[in-house]
Amino acid sequence: MQNRGLLKELIQSLCCLPGVGPKSAQRMAFHLLQRNRDGGSQLGKILAQAMLEVGYCEECRTLTEARICEICSNSQRDSTLLCIVENSSDTWIIDQATGYKGKYFVLHGRLSPLDGIGPDQLGIGLLEQQMRSGKIKEIILATNATVEGQATAHFIGELAAKLNIHATRMASGIPMGGELEFIDSSTVSHAFNGRVEI
Amino acid sequence: MQNRGLLKELIQSLCCLPGVGPKSAQRMAFHLLQRNRDGGSQLGKILAQAMLEVGYCEECRTLTEARICEICSNSQRDSTLLCIVENSSDTWIIDQATGYKGKYFVLHGRLSPLDGIGPDQLGIGLLEQQMRSGKIKEIILATNATVEGQATAHFIGELAAKLNIHATRMASGIPMGGELEFIDSSTVSHAFNGRVEI
Repeated sequence: MQNRGLLKELIQSLCCLPGVGPKSAQRMAFHLLQRNRDGGSQLGKILAQAMLEVGYCEECRTLTEARICEICSNSQRDSTLLCIVENSSDTWIIDQATGYKGKYFVLHGRLSPLDGIGPDQLGIGLLEQQMRSGKIKEIILATNATVEGQATAHFIGELAAKLNIHATRMASGIPMGGELEFIDSSTVSHAFNGRVEI
Repeated sequence: MQNRGLLKELIQSLCCLPGVGPKSAQRMAFHLLQRNRDGGSQLGKILAQAMLEVGYCEECRTLTEARICEICSNSQRDSTLLCIVENSSDTWIIDQATGYKGKYFVLHGRLSPLDGIGPDQLGIGLLEQQMRSGKIKEIILATNATVEGQATAHFIGELAAKLNIHATRMASGIPMGGELEFIDSSTVSHAFNGRVEI
């Protein structure tokens, strides 16, 4: 196996990518070596650099290689609005899908006491400090619609109530284009009970 | 976009992997940054090294970082047998699936005049030189069962006939476990016409 070492190592390393097993890793390795060496070299360089240099924004905790991220340092964005999300990628999703022009706060997870994830791990201290600063008028809770996500939203909502800050939660219900026939009963029940005036 | 640069670059670079689009690339980048930085750094290092150092075996043209690959330099393997495959990965597939203990020759493609791929691009010169050396008793044509793969096998088969070398081709027919109902008619017809004594 000695001389095949580097190729084997490459295939094993590619398996660390999510959703990539040994077969896909093998296909990727051969593809890069046979058809796209420049792309592979470039990817290797950027990967090594990003793993080293990308850290967390000191204000909103999103992933960035700067001390303060692009959104937090953008004076055009409304700093009276704070949208609270579970992951850095959620900020991109909301920015792309909506016209939201406020700021974000990234929890990097959700409350999950069994996994040892409490308020400290989610940076709730930093969040509370920002909420106490008096600048924020509304927080938008955009954690996922899972049990833990909802528990997290509830926890932060109570904090906001204590500090007299208006808190809203993303609506949940039937997704656009959804047909009742194919939607799980918990979503149907939630949407039915939470019906709104037309 | 300035401060988001490195993350964006990483996502774009990941798109060079086969079967990875912008959405998966985004998921991979966030996964590595949030959960597996060591794996990501390691992958980056190996990728850069492999793209630079992995070359082609001087005897069989397979991908290797050595001058002569592990199989060609292994004296335990039978050098009177030569199995001809389209890709480096095919040598692994045959080694894993069969007890084959001969040598290989890798074409890195198939004859395809419209794409400018002729005998020169496939290293047929080097192959002919090896066949003329008098050491090889049998060549096994293991190119893919596509039209171009079969044309390539036919071309090399004729060369072998000219040099009086015994040439065989991997059998084609119904795959193991296959049910006639679900198999394309060209395979059924091929298997029917090529039926063998039981």
